[in-house]
Amino acid sequence: MKIYKYPDKNNWSELIKRPVFKREKLTEIIADIFNQVKENGDQALIDFNKKFDNAEVKNIKVSEEEIENTEELTSEELKHAIQQAKENITKFHASQIVEIEKIETTKGVVCWRENRAIEKVGIYIPGGTAPLFSTVLMLAIPAQLAGCKEIILCTPPDKNGNINPAILYTAKLCGVSQIFKTGGAQAIAAMTLGTESIPNVYKIFGPGNQFVVAAKDFTQNFGLAIDMPAGPSEVLVIADENAIPEFCAADLLSQAEHGIDSQVIFISTDLKVLNETIEEVKKQIEKLPRNKFAQQSLNNSYFILLDSMEEALEFTNLYAPEHLILAVEQFENYINRIQNAGSVFLGNYSCESAGDYASGTNHTLPTNGFAKNYSGVSLDSFVKKITFQHLSKEGLQNLGKTIEIMAEAEGLFAHKNAVSIRLNQENERI
Amino acid sequence: MKIYKYPDKNNWSELIKRPVFKREKLTEIIADIFNQVKENGDQALIDFNKKFDNAEVKNIKVSEEEIENTEELTSEELKHAIQQAKENITKFHASQIVEIEKIETTKGVVCWRENRAIEKVGIYIPGGTAPLFSTVLMLAIPAQLAGCKEIILCTPPDKNGNINPAILYTAKLCGVSQIFKTGGAQAIAAMTLGTESIPNVYKIFGPGNQFVVAAKDFTQNFGLAIDMPAGPSEVLVIADENAIPEFCAADLLSQAEHGIDSQVIFISTDLKVLNETIEEVKKQIEKLPRNKFAQQSLNNSYFILLDSMEEALEFTNLYAPEHLILAVEQFENYINRIQNAGSVFLGNYSCESAGDYASGTNHTLPTNGFAKNYSGVSLDSFVKKITFQHLSKEGLQNLGKTIEIMAEAEGLFAHKNAVSIRLNQENERI
Repeated sequence: MKIYKYPDKNNWSELIKRPVFKREKLTEIIADIFNQVKENGDQALIDFNKKFDNAEVKNIKVSEEEIENTEELTSEELKHAIQQAKENITKFHASQIVEIEKIETTKGVVCWRENRAIEKVGIYIPGGTAPLFSTVLMLAIPAQLAGCKEIILCTPPDKNGNINPAILYTAKLCGVSQIFKTGGAQAIAAMTLGTESIPNVYKIFGPGNQFVVAAKDFTQNFGLAIDMPAGPSEVLVIADENAIPEFCAADLLSQAEHGIDSQVIFISTDLKVLNETIEEVKKQIEKLPRNKFAQQSLNNSYFILLDSMEEALEFTNLYAPEHLILAVEQFENYINRIQNAGSVFLGNYSCESAGDYASGTNHTLPTNGFAKNYSGVSLDSFVKKITFQHLSKEGLQNLGKTIEIMAEAEGLFAHKNAVSIRLNQENERI
Repeated sequence: MKIYKYPDKNNWSELIKRPVFKREKLTEIIADIFNQVKENGDQALIDFNKKFDNAEVKNIKVSEEEIENTEELTSEELKHAIQQAKENITKFHASQIVEIEKIETTKGVVCWRENRAIEKVGIYIPGGTAPLFSTVLMLAIPAQLAGCKEIILCTPPDKNGNINPAILYTAKLCGVSQIFKTGGAQAIAAMTLGTESIPNVYKIFGPGNQFVVAAKDFTQNFGLAIDMPAGPSEVLVIADENAIPEFCAADLLSQAEHGIDSQVIFISTDLKVLNETIEEVKKQIEKLPRNKFAQQSLNNSYFILLDSMEEALEFTNLYAPEHLILAVEQFENYINRIQNAGSVFLGNYSCESAGDYASGTNHTLPTNGFAKNYSGVSLDSFVKKITFQHLSKEGLQNLGKTIEIMAEAEGLFAHKNAVSIRLNQENERI
């Protein structure tokens, strides 16, 4: 926990740097895994399950029966919560559907865009310490809304060869077509290349460890798209004198518990709030089951006292946080000045957890400064927008001369001729 | 020119393959260029200009005077054409601005998205055989509409150290803030790292040779975004019995003249139209100044006779062309079945040249099958969409339990606590 009071602006560039985690060059390892999956298909995945997850799995594909059983294995309370979250996420992402609008740019020249779903998408859900069924919601709901025909999901099995029931329940609820028991780089390889059981897809979504991240990087060599570049999760909280230190501390810790590389930044314009928040963090962390993770990521965290909201926003835009909490009274006044952030939480009751689970916004967001040039996942991530145009004969007559002149100036005479031959033709056609 | 009559569907996977151009591993060369630009800044660019473009350039930055002079150096006719194109492109891209819509997903929980321009963008315009001022229009207009603060442009100088006046004229017209005389991988390096003259940017757009493509790949290691993965340009024309062979041939040739690696595919459901189009291509190619390019790319092209429009569309969706021309009478009937394409031209008068220059749609489009998972450039390419949310105290009361249950089920107790601490607090705050 590092505390900076009124740091000089010349030192800000140091403060906005993310902790550097050496990412080993994994290309050779990844290429080898891809080769094995290409050569041996499902059998390679079965072997990897044994090797990496210590799991005996006969069938890579999760059976109908296993999926049906989740009804019993998931508590009514949790099912109800997942359903409420699904409703909100659906409502918000459905609002992102844009009506087709035809634009007549010149008389007789009509242009428009239409959305088409990416036909086949793959969702990766990591195993490990937390069963991330919330990420299934965040990726499968917009995929289904977009109309993706094939939505597959890969996730590693536990030692008994099973998948967490809440993941299966959520996947079924949100229209995932097939679920497979495979994790790590081999899962990404399988969705890239296809195996006997697993269809290849066109775009891969979801978080993962450094092998998954490297495999997602590698899959782009095969023409696949991915959701976005990866980095550790982050929150930046701006608190004015009206912020409530208990709340701020809880928000900082909810980020810090993610993992040892999570990044947490607290900015206040009020010394009392700053000090009280630090005290609260120390108090609250004691009670957390994951306090070892939280403690390590707090060691990298900054608590910064600044002069004004102007400075706080200036720092924030430089840092470009994944999550930004404005624990300030007049938050409306500052919205327009937020330039770089993934998702913004306004006021004292908008905790990050709300967006992580159930308010409706997506929790797959740009980290590591990518909020400067990337958006989070949305319905747009699952579609392509195709442009259409129709020129009537009159339309081409109105625009043809312009095209001819420009094509000639670029020295592209066949481009020009495609217009001239139409303008000069004699017989009438529509 | 290869002709296939009713090819067996089992062989389609061969026909949809793009000609493979061996891309050498350029990583070392590119890394070296990046290093030199990092070490020596502007001087490195001046040296590269001499080495690669045989150009003596003192100032990398194009002066105000040079830009003013383009008024005289550009013909009135061309200026007028560029202005008409600008109007149409502006009209179409301005229609892509989406109003903010606030969604109350649960009572007291309000979520929405707001666009923010990517603050600093770089446009690369290649030198070479054609002065691509049309690409300046296609990239600078949406950048300006989006509100990008810094729009810089790099393009290589000619042997006299000059930039084509039409490029300068268009750049000025469309709000490009600064123009620099540098090309190739070193231009991409300069926009990535910044030099004394050239500011670093967050996203790089534009076409280029294999060095530029490799440098754009490489720049992503530095946290930059790029417009899209690159490949040679393509057109697929579907012609029914009502298509006009002269027009089809002209469209095929306008694609073929781009370069020797351009790909051209012609599909007809009518043998007469197929044969006449082939004859027309042979006739029209003779008159083209760039017929050497066109002839080479035609050697790789396919002319395919198929049974029905259904088959033609099935093939098209597998191929996923950058440009698709539907030279068919009832084109309205087929729009919904177009799944994978970059930009679609409908009917006998919608030639690709219209979209290349002036109809209003963007000509920066996904090639090489990327139309399966990427959109072309649009206003969206220059913005990030930030999600915002506000929960009132009542909103958190309505949704809190759901968040607590889900967080607990994922084992994330600090996430749960961020809600509980708010629900359990005693004093009232907004």
